[in-house]
Amino acid sequence: MKAFVTVALKKTVLDPQGKAVQAALAKLGHAAIRDVRQGKCFELDLAAGTNPAAARTEVERVAREVLTNPVIEEFSIRWDD
Amino acid sequence: MKAFVTVALKKTVLDPQGKAVQAALAKLGHAAIRDVRQGKCFELDLAAGTNPAAARTEVERVAREVLTNPVIEEFSIRWDD
Repeated sequence: MKAFVTVALKKTVLDPQGKAVQAALAKLGHAAIRDVRQGKCFELDLAAGTNPAAARTEVERVAREVLTNPVIEEFSIRWDD
Repeated sequence: MKAFVTVALKKTVLDPQGKAVQAALAKLGHAAIRDVRQGKCFELDLAAGTNPAAARTEVERVAREVLTNPVIEEFSIRWDD
């Protein structure tokens, strides 16, 4: 059972790293790409036999309390059972 | 039209950053999380009216040639039309 947690800066927060990537891509001729935002991904591998409901609660807690800085970041979770 | 490019170390490459996160989570009592791998995410926003087929080709090229180091990394693309 795997969880993919994506952590990205909130839309209202400036993302200089993404802006730099976008500027580099524009210089390389990729003008169709108007905006880039960069974030972090975590692939969490859960022990086999973990109760699915408990796992969901635990991963959401880990994402909220450990992986994300709630002041400037937001997270989303995708599951691969 | 948005593309989400995930870049992660190949499974055969050691991921010390992910190992550090896993060790920290284990210390915090999250023993069910057996393994963590960390990667980068890019959210690419394409200009409205871009030809979808051309956009797919362009984003795949950008992911392969610019965002990924093919020696140690691999990428995947998810689309949000």
